Amino acid sequence: MAETIKLKKQPKIIGSYSIVGPKEGKGNFGEYFDYVMKNDFFGEKTFEKAERKMLENAITGVIQNAKLQTKDIDIMIAGDLLNQIISSSYAARVFNFPFLGVYGACSTMAESIGVASILVDGGYSKNVVCCTGSHFSTAERQYRFPLELGNQRPPTSQWTVTGAGSCVISLEGEGPRITMVTFGKVVDWGINDVNNMGGAMAPAARETMLNHFRNTKTGPDDYDLILTGDLGKLGSEILIDLMEDEGITLGSNYGDCGQMYFKRSQQTLCGASGAGCCATVFNSFIIKKLQEKKYKRILFMPTGALLSTTSTQQGDTIPCTCHAIVIEA
Amino acid sequence: MAETIKLKKQPKIIGSYSIVGPKEGKGNFGEYFDYVMKNDFFGEKTFEKAERKMLENAITGVIQNAKLQTKDIDIMIAGDLLNQIISSSYAARVFNFPFLGVYGACSTMAESIGVASILVDGGYSKNVVCCTGSHFSTAERQYRFPLELGNQRPPTSQWTVTGAGSCVISLEGEGPRITMVTFGKVVDWGINDVNNMGGAMAPAARETMLNHFRNTKTGPDDYDLILTGDLGKLGSEILIDLMEDEGITLGSNYGDCGQMYFKRSQQTLCGASGAGCCATVFNSFIIKKLQEKKYKRILFMPTGALLSTTSTQQGDTIPCTCHAIVIEA
Repeated sequence: MAETIKLKKQPKIIGSYSIVGPKEGKGNFGEYFDYVMKNDFFGEKTFEKAERKMLENAITGVIQNAKLQTKDIDIMIAGDLLNQIISSSYAARVFNFPFLGVYGACSTMAESIGVASILVDGGYSKNVVCCTGSHFSTAERQYRFPLELGNQRPPTSQWTVTGAGSCVISLEGEGPRITMVTFGKVVDWGINDVNNMGGAMAPAARETMLNHFRNTKTGPDDYDLILTGDLGKLGSEILIDLMEDEGITLGSNYGDCGQMYFKRSQQTLCGASGAGCCATVFNSFIIKKLQEKKYKRILFMPTGALLSTTSTQQGDTIPCTCHAIVIEA
Repeated sequence: MAETIKLKKQPKIIGSYSIVGPKEGKGNFGEYFDYVMKNDFFGEKTFEKAERKMLENAITGVIQNAKLQTKDIDIMIAGDLLNQIISSSYAARVFNFPFLGVYGACSTMAESIGVASILVDGGYSKNVVCCTGSHFSTAERQYRFPLELGNQRPPTSQWTVTGAGSCVISLEGEGPRITMVTFGKVVDWGINDVNNMGGAMAPAARETMLNHFRNTKTGPDDYDLILTGDLGKLGSEILIDLMEDEGITLGSNYGDCGQMYFKRSQQTLCGASGAGCCATVFNSFIIKKLQEKKYKRILFMPTGALLSTTSTQQGDTIPCTCHAIVIEA
């Protein structure tokens, strides 16, 4: 069971923070977010600088929520969707603690929590900040089309969340415990449609879920909630089918952040996506429900599509990954 | 001393591998590389696919050199300079072990070795593969100008190495030991010239070196070799000056991979750069000299410039980082 790591000391999530755009604030999780921006520019001249500022605020906010000061933070682990993860690197420039940049596309929240848990569990760091985010307008114009083009969106497309989420992992303090981590492999079943991320990522979620269940001798019934990141409406349906083929039924305790994020009237087609999607849901609604012991044990499985415009233009299919984290109240 | 981590079990580098392009093969470290490609296309249709193939070969090669099989590898940690680190993600697709994507620009080799050392030292993983690389033609056309333009290069510019380096970290087996890791902060002294990476990165090397010396109560004389990544001729001179200002003299035991990589006749102006620069020097020449006990204790300090074309176009200066690893024979 090399892929699954059991954490002996079970590091805690002692603080979390979420910041989102106005559209996200009107979505299904609106009341749970720490801060809803008035508009997507957030007082900056470009959307890219707004995204960076969201991450800066998410880092400052989570340190406050964890009742810590900047000097208490040993290291920060962050990543985002922009080329060379500039939102994270530039946000890290503001703070006086070491920075590890990670990239797992929309699975970044899980990758950063996974690495942070190991740093803390092994006694190498005391307090670690994890952060990620995305911005609809920066992702759209970097990965797809200029915003001014007003391109029509196909029915399988998803809406990149404008938002950032963060948490602090530590052994000291109170909060839900991280008990297991299953890092994902890279899975590619040959999807090359960049407007069908859910379909591309579902096989990666399947692979990690099967590995996790096998390694830990658990099944869907052992979790109050199994939550994938941003498979969306189509992708989560595909995952249910793929698991059914393996004899595993995902029931009413299975959900997907992308599928649940927006209201139907918000017209986001297959739902939400982006690194900020599961990061803002996890660091608001989920943490709150764990604190209230509404959920006692959840399996959090953010997925990521590891493509770039370069690989797409060169005719490549989309490699995907999925990391799984078990959190207990 | 939160920034510096001392590794109790001192994980070993039980295998290393390097693959480079023909120009690099004719450089000062030519005889030490495992494989020199006949040309920069490496049998592929695009330079990007050639870069990916270099990483794939570096991973396969290092597993062989470590006398292991693919099934023995618990996890792979890799990153590169291309948008969304596609060379690493696509290379990971070929293998059946979990993958953690990291991004630290040209400091990636140190970031991956640092995280891998913690995974192994803490008993979370047995054998971890670290890999990174770069390709002159993919970096040039992604970060600077189309290759066809034949742009004139300013005197402060450096030449991106075409090459990939990899190593396996483990507690079992023989090899140089990793004893300490100092993860770097993000430092930006306001340089905005994308053709002066050495000047931009030197302050980050200064910051990490000062922190490392202070935290470990060591100085330049405690190391047989202090090796920065790719500051180049100008950047390494700047670092020497900056350290002199702090009362620390870097003498003949200080070197920079970028400054030493190419011969003067190869016309690379300020020298070599790229994630593949220090990765190929470290995983060939340096490891060999450690195995021969020519060096007993080295301080390896790859630097990285965390910019992107987006940040440059929006008028931003260049944030940089530097991670330090202590390796002992």
